[in-house]
Amino acid sequence: MILSLVEQYPERLNGIFQALADPTRRAVLRRLGKGPASISELARPFDMALPSFMKHIHLLEHTGWIQTRKRGRVRTCALEKKPFVAVESWLSAQKALWEGRTDRLEQFVTGARRGEKSR
Amino acid sequence: MILSLVEQYPERLNGIFQALADPTRRAVLRRLGKGPASISELARPFDMALPSFMKHIHLLEHTGWIQTRKRGRVRTCALEKKPFVAVESWLSAQKALWEGRTDRLEQFVTGARRGEKSR
Repeated sequence: MILSLVEQYPERLNGIFQALADPTRRAVLRRLGKGPASISELARPFDMALPSFMKHIHLLEHTGWIQTRKRGRVRTCALEKKPFVAVESWLSAQKALWEGRTDRLEQFVTGARRGEKSR
Repeated sequence: MILSLVEQYPERLNGIFQALADPTRRAVLRRLGKGPASISELARPFDMALPSFMKHIHLLEHTGWIQTRKRGRVRTCALEKKPFVAVESWLSAQKALWEGRTDRLEQFVTGARRGEKSR
């Protein structure tokens, strides 16, 4: 589903990559890779005021990287995998271009060699 | 080499992802995936003043995504693959966390079942 969303709305990829352009946000995603965590647990390793940290959490949530849920006073964050699929899909599409290029180059070289032999 | 550079200087990943957070820059990388191109060829599809377009080119060059060379009046751009390796490496590291998590969950479930059987 994310693939068609990304195709329809390429601006989603802007946010997906923007979210990764910051070491705090990448560290939060790494931590959440091990399982859900509360905001206070996530904030602990960072020497950062809570409002600044919350800006990172909001950006991660807004760009689709995490979901958050509040139970009582505790807000818990969990990783979303769709943006990873979108990044992987972007990488694959880019690789397909090179590989197409390499294939064409191989065909050209092989073709040229056949041409040499048949002369 | 980029892997150890990224490990040593994680701020390189900031620029690598920042560069991807823009549709013009992603389109330039897609075009360069098919082979090197001149600045004027790259700029053609975009309804953008050249100085604005050059800012994107400079950012792609500065963050390591492309190399540019000038011969006479023509500046040619070519794709660099190291940032792709860095992005792939980041994705793999993140996946390894989940998979470790899944493995531990499997061990837990398998262990629990064995425990049930041996009772």
